[in-house]
Amino acid sequence: MGSEIYLDNSSTTRQYDEVTSLMATIASTKYGNPSSLHTKGIEAERLVSASRETIADLLGVRPSEVYFTSGGTESNNLAIIGYLEANPRKGRHIITTSIEHPSVLEVFRHLGSRGWSVDFLDVDEKGRILTGQLEEKIRPDTALISIVLVNNETGTIQDIEEISSIRDSLNPQTVIHADAVQAFGKITLYPVRAGIDLMSVSSHKIHGPKGVGALYVSAKVRINPLFYGGGQETLLRSGTENVPGIAGFGLAASMTTEKIDESFRKAVGLRELLISELASSDISYCVNSPDDALPHIVNISFENVRAEVLLHHLEQRGIFVSTGSACSSHKKSRSHVLTAMGIAPELIDGAIRFSFSNQNTEDEIRLTVDALKDIIPVIDISRKKRPGRK
Amino acid sequence: MGSEIYLDNSSTTRQYDEVTSLMATIASTKYGNPSSLHTKGIEAERLVSASRETIADLLGVRPSEVYFTSGGTESNNLAIIGYLEANPRKGRHIITTSIEHPSVLEVFRHLGSRGWSVDFLDVDEKGRILTGQLEEKIRPDTALISIVLVNNETGTIQDIEEISSIRDSLNPQTVIHADAVQAFGKITLYPVRAGIDLMSVSSHKIHGPKGVGALYVSAKVRINPLFYGGGQETLLRSGTENVPGIAGFGLAASMTTEKIDESFRKAVGLRELLISELASSDISYCVNSPDDALPHIVNISFENVRAEVLLHHLEQRGIFVSTGSACSSHKKSRSHVLTAMGIAPELIDGAIRFSFSNQNTEDEIRLTVDALKDIIPVIDISRKKRPGRK
Repeated sequence: MGSEIYLDNSSTTRQYDEVTSLMATIASTKYGNPSSLHTKGIEAERLVSASRETIADLLGVRPSEVYFTSGGTESNNLAIIGYLEANPRKGRHIITTSIEHPSVLEVFRHLGSRGWSVDFLDVDEKGRILTGQLEEKIRPDTALISIVLVNNETGTIQDIEEISSIRDSLNPQTVIHADAVQAFGKITLYPVRAGIDLMSVSSHKIHGPKGVGALYVSAKVRINPLFYGGGQETLLRSGTENVPGIAGFGLAASMTTEKIDESFRKAVGLRELLISELASSDISYCVNSPDDALPHIVNISFENVRAEVLLHHLEQRGIFVSTGSACSSHKKSRSHVLTAMGIAPELIDGAIRFSFSNQNTEDEIRLTVDALKDIIPVIDISRKKRPGRK
Repeated sequence: MGSEIYLDNSSTTRQYDEVTSLMATIASTKYGNPSSLHTKGIEAERLVSASRETIADLLGVRPSEVYFTSGGTESNNLAIIGYLEANPRKGRHIITTSIEHPSVLEVFRHLGSRGWSVDFLDVDEKGRILTGQLEEKIRPDTALISIVLVNNETGTIQDIEEISSIRDSLNPQTVIHADAVQAFGKITLYPVRAGIDLMSVSSHKIHGPKGVGALYVSAKVRINPLFYGGGQETLLRSGTENVPGIAGFGLAASMTTEKIDESFRKAVGLRELLISELASSDISYCVNSPDDALPHIVNISFENVRAEVLLHHLEQRGIFVSTGSACSSHKKSRSHVLTAMGIAPELIDGAIRFSFSNQNTEDEIRLTVDALKDIIPVIDISRKKRPGRK
């Protein structure tokens, strides 16, 4: 297959070698259980604390407000279910958007089936929520609003400060949970300043280990655990801490955040290069991601192409991209995100997500467009319909 | 500190180097998201499937009956809460023992506060449940019995086949959940033969990575998820799979199980050596673990000694042991397990758990007893009361 071009960084990323090496050292020398009273326990506990401080520092919050989990999905579930269970008197109405990740959408559907009143906000053609609709929906009994800060399929960034100021003016009791899984490490996020009460982040999207995430819980907010047991994570998340994973997450978070501006500019450059190379080719396409989206995610529809066919042709050349999001790929239905944005079904069927990390290069983008130029004429559905033409 | 003697293997174990190396390779080369449609996703999915087949094979069950989780605590919670939520008509009565790990005990306490009728079985002086009491407690509305197969503090092994035959005769509708976290990899376990419907296992107790576990769910039993999201693990456990962790768990499970008989005999030898060396010393002690306990766990009370003081003296010599279980150490109360066994409070206060793995040696045991001979006279409480005597 030769060298790989991995443009599916929003699905997951390649772990930093430094993280792998740190985790290996911890697994072989600092393998104690943080709950053990002896020094091997204490050194493990210190690794967890140091990582907690790193994450807290990057978010501008207190270490005691950061809880480690097994990943973004658990963080989203813990935030939403944990808040609602701990605060039964705050109301039975909850709001989210129609373009959430399944780990929020499915929680809301589950809660809807359990008697909660649930509203899913519509989005405009850029994937931005309709703030007028949010103003209409917030009620005195709205307990929680859950918003994906950066959409995983298009990179659309929500204006969280506008959302929280609407909340402040209409029902300051309503808490805001932000799913920051795609945002963390790519744009600078300070939940307190943004009016966010609960915020989920994940490690494997920023070159950290899989199986680790965190939840920011404002000290003002009380939530219940999803698990019961040994009382780790200040009673909120029982279970022996994944010490190497947590330490690896901390290192990945600092390494990623250290270069956050450089990586952002690089992603802008890669995005511009991809689009300009496509523009100067014969390929018919349209960019579904808005201009002001996170540059790391570019969703593009190719006309008269079936995305899955294109994906498999690209992978034969060692180029890895995604149709829709990885986490929705268990379902074969059309992207709920692109549908909500009003994109025509035939364009959704040809939509490919290119997602960049700081490890991608301009050469990789050029090679990708070269591959697209070769492949698309071959797999073009409209051409196949006319067998006389080659 | 010199070389370490780690006798706290029931808290957690040192990861096998082979596991560390496998995980590093996967993290750097097979880092795809199993949900991705391209080959990097498929190769990641294959690693997860292979590990699932390994675990299933070791348990004599079908791969489709094995679900990966973030660890033993999540498995215990998922089994108990997931079963009760999915089967609301099976009754509102649940039974467990008074010597469970907190990740079962706290779930039962939580359910008790939510209106479930909860019974905690007493144990005899060996820590074995009173089967007569079990016979009295099983009712037509008993939905679930949760039993720790090997107790984490004493190594007491429950007679699960007797327990399940009592269940069969009194209420075959009642499901049995076994917490096999301390048993897996140490004694051969076939849940189907033992009449177990749900069984929790953990990776980091058998030299596998932290943050990974599994739950066996009999195909006959339906359970609900604790998390909602992308629908991974056949909808039962959403969240991007911890591929390196899951693969590492599979490897650790086969490596441990391959030598299960040899390790058992070795643990018997280490246990016998520890006790015979103590017997031929001046140390006053009593063995709390029954003779027929899992030999890997030996709980010993030292007279006129405060266990925590002894633990810290031992660690100064690079010897790591435990007082009670690591997972209970967030609480400062006396061991609920030793209390349930009727051991006198002053002996509980002097109780140390030595827990072995295949990596321990006879020399380590001799060095440990030598250390005990030096330390105990110095920290003996009864001697301190008589300042005239040295």
